Amino acid sequence: MFDPVEKLKEYIACRSVSADSAFKEDMLKTRDFVADMFSGMGLSVEIVNTNKHPVVLAKREGDPEWPHVVIYGHYDVQPVDPIELWETQPFEAIVKGDRIYGRGAADNKGPQMAHVAAVGQLLEEHPDLPLRITFLIEGEEEIGSPSLLPLLVERKEIFSEADFVLLSDTLSPSPEQIAVTVGLRGIVELEFELTGPKSDLHSGLHGGAVYNPLQAISELCASLHTAENRVNIDGFYDDVTEVEQWERDELAALGFDEEQYKRTLKVDSLHPLDGYTAQEAIRYLPTLEFNGLWGGYQGEGSKTIVPSKASCKITCRLVGNQKPDVVGKLVAEAIKQRAPKGFQLKFRMGHAGVPYQVVPPDRPNTPSDQPELLAKAFRATEKAIEKSFGKRPLFLREGGSIPIIADVKRVTGLDSVMIGLFLPEDNLHAPNESMNLDVLKKGIQASKEILKEVAGV
Amino acid sequence: MFDPVEKLKEYIACRSVSADSAFKEDMLKTRDFVADMFSGMGLSVEIVNTNKHPVVLAKREGDPEWPHVVIYGHYDVQPVDPIELWETQPFEAIVKGDRIYGRGAADNKGPQMAHVAAVGQLLEEHPDLPLRITFLIEGEEEIGSPSLLPLLVERKEIFSEADFVLLSDTLSPSPEQIAVTVGLRGIVELEFELTGPKSDLHSGLHGGAVYNPLQAISELCASLHTAENRVNIDGFYDDVTEVEQWERDELAALGFDEEQYKRTLKVDSLHPLDGYTAQEAIRYLPTLEFNGLWGGYQGEGSKTIVPSKASCKITCRLVGNQKPDVVGKLVAEAIKQRAPKGFQLKFRMGHAGVPYQVVPPDRPNTPSDQPELLAKAFRATEKAIEKSFGKRPLFLREGGSIPIIADVKRVTGLDSVMIGLFLPEDNLHAPNESMNLDVLKKGIQASKEILKEVAGV
Repeated sequence: MFDPVEKLKEYIACRSVSADSAFKEDMLKTRDFVADMFSGMGLSVEIVNTNKHPVVLAKREGDPEWPHVVIYGHYDVQPVDPIELWETQPFEAIVKGDRIYGRGAADNKGPQMAHVAAVGQLLEEHPDLPLRITFLIEGEEEIGSPSLLPLLVERKEIFSEADFVLLSDTLSPSPEQIAVTVGLRGIVELEFELTGPKSDLHSGLHGGAVYNPLQAISELCASLHTAENRVNIDGFYDDVTEVEQWERDELAALGFDEEQYKRTLKVDSLHPLDGYTAQEAIRYLPTLEFNGLWGGYQGEGSKTIVPSKASCKITCRLVGNQKPDVVGKLVAEAIKQRAPKGFQLKFRMGHAGVPYQVVPPDRPNTPSDQPELLAKAFRATEKAIEKSFGKRPLFLREGGSIPIIADVKRVTGLDSVMIGLFLPEDNLHAPNESMNLDVLKKGIQASKEILKEVAGV
Repeated sequence: MFDPVEKLKEYIACRSVSADSAFKEDMLKTRDFVADMFSGMGLSVEIVNTNKHPVVLAKREGDPEWPHVVIYGHYDVQPVDPIELWETQPFEAIVKGDRIYGRGAADNKGPQMAHVAAVGQLLEEHPDLPLRITFLIEGEEEIGSPSLLPLLVERKEIFSEADFVLLSDTLSPSPEQIAVTVGLRGIVELEFELTGPKSDLHSGLHGGAVYNPLQAISELCASLHTAENRVNIDGFYDDVTEVEQWERDELAALGFDEEQYKRTLKVDSLHPLDGYTAQEAIRYLPTLEFNGLWGGYQGEGSKTIVPSKASCKITCRLVGNQKPDVVGKLVAEAIKQRAPKGFQLKFRMGHAGVPYQVVPPDRPNTPSDQPELLAKAFRATEKAIEKSFGKRPLFLREGGSIPIIADVKRVTGLDSVMIGLFLPEDNLHAPNESMNLDVLKKGIQASKEILKEVAGV
């Protein structure tokens, strides 16, 4: 078996930037690297071509009676800009102290390697392990996984007899405290443009006579939250669900330090909805967030105009039973109704993803029809992490969105066990990305324990 | 004497774009063209060098007892972009029908030519005309006249014995209805930047916990006007003065067509302060106008961030006794007080100009100490325009700002007689700029009549 750290170094050396077409050749080399890695472990490999970057499927087949786990990961990485802030070469992995540095170390090559190495070692130690395994490693995660949903639909058979999905592409609060993510927020994106005069007007000759689109869009955007920071749209919270006591207990066990959090974000104060802590707001509440707002002159000095247009980009994060199309429509409708007369309004509705939630076994709200193997996987995960990391994991909802997790659930019925193997200090999507090698080592141990337990050996 | 239209063609052929350093040579050639034009008329010419583009001073000296008029103009023009929308070559003047086309035709070479040609003809017809004349033709008007105020201060003697300033760099409503501008709004510019988190945050991982700077700036900007479109800052209107009945009568005589105005601006509705017409609001009221507003992601698609910063550019137009520094401070103070806690606020205070107003003679509010020659000039202007254009001019305040007019008044004590010789259809600062040649012809006649009357011949 390969050495996981050495293999990870080679993997990081693959310059797999999916967003930049200049890296097309590197993407193909990375695909081959991944395929060879699995072939070398004795798995049967299939390359599934897509419109952009291929998916690598690697299977350990076996008796249809055996449990079947799908392990998800992605071989693509974020661009490296701003390159001048890197202290090492992003594609030359370097081990310093207990960390490995390089683009993709934490997102997702390192955490993915925990499962790859676990399977490799396990199959050497237990050549007859009664477990079917399918690795699904895609190359488009950093550009929104456009090919994954079509693949799920076309190749349903991959999942038809699977029992659950295992992945590590989420955050844990610290190397001592691993989190298992049991909820992800959904998302809906929209953009609108408000046009007043057909072209910019001279603010001397006409200022005072016409409604300034920047004034109008400010008034419109300001109307979307109350002074308590509640989204001020009727029905917005209708499908938000209650938070269970066990979830509050898990969050309390996290012992979150708000002062430390403020220092990390470099903000002077937090601003959650009245009555909630910041951590509750992130994990349990939907948002209406302005991602971009612009109009008029942005250059040096001044330009004395009444601008023609103003634009705004919004994403809403969704929770519970909120539906992206329903919430998107509510927000667009509110904007339409509140836009002052005399303006033209143009909308673009963007990408959307439903919220995802899975309840571990033995909770008051665990579904009575929860598949036995999913329950087994959760119990195995709790036990294995406690054994490897010394502390039981916390089962927490997260504020982020991984729309494919909900897509997998919707199309295949499969739930996901998401074990957080990257940390706040790992600099994901930023210069000097790294992974804690102790977390990698313990992650391999834990993954092996989980897979053995699920296999029943 | 030269033919004014032919001379104007040559003048337009001078590519005098002051904003673009690629036109440096052309600016020098234009300076020489202007100097030669005045020398050819027998005037003594002085080139005053500045930090950027020189000023041409041309004098007809004479008996210190003679009246002394300063005629202002500028030889620089706006850039020609977007060049593809021009139907002719911008620097090859072409006469089509009753109009001359080319960059600078209306702003300011054509209207300026009315006075240059008038003086030329007058001095041929009346070689002993008892009138001192100083042309001050600058080359930096389109970049904000940065050298003019220093020149006024350093070369006070130019104006020390002058009686008034005559210029044509303002708008008239139609070729039949000439306007004499008797008021210009002042201006004060400010820009502010609101910083929340020190860098953009992931809107999934942190959204809901922090105050979004775009939400904060929307709320802040929305607070600056009431629902009636009144500027919502205590003291903002304190130094606004009452409008005299004769001013309202003049505006009423204009017979303004709001439907036509809306079609011209291509807006569906107007939005003046409650209780005012659009034309009253433009001419009599101050404004707080958003010229630019921006923050976050403006590119294609979406970027799921809580942005770090939001910025806003504001200009206020001022009237009556409003002072730019007082109003600028009021607005900045309101923004400071209303910015939510936890944000850092950075201001830039930009250029400023006081409002300007001059009252023609024989009005109830004409200053009792109005200089006789200024009164004479206004009376002569009224008579001459009625004679040349067939209709008496309207004495109107305008919404625009020409800070140098107030600077001249402040430094030299001189008032200005501003005769509008360009029209709404002349496409100033835009492709296919042109000037109505009938207005030019009548403008020359009127200018001659005014100067003769002032000279007392």
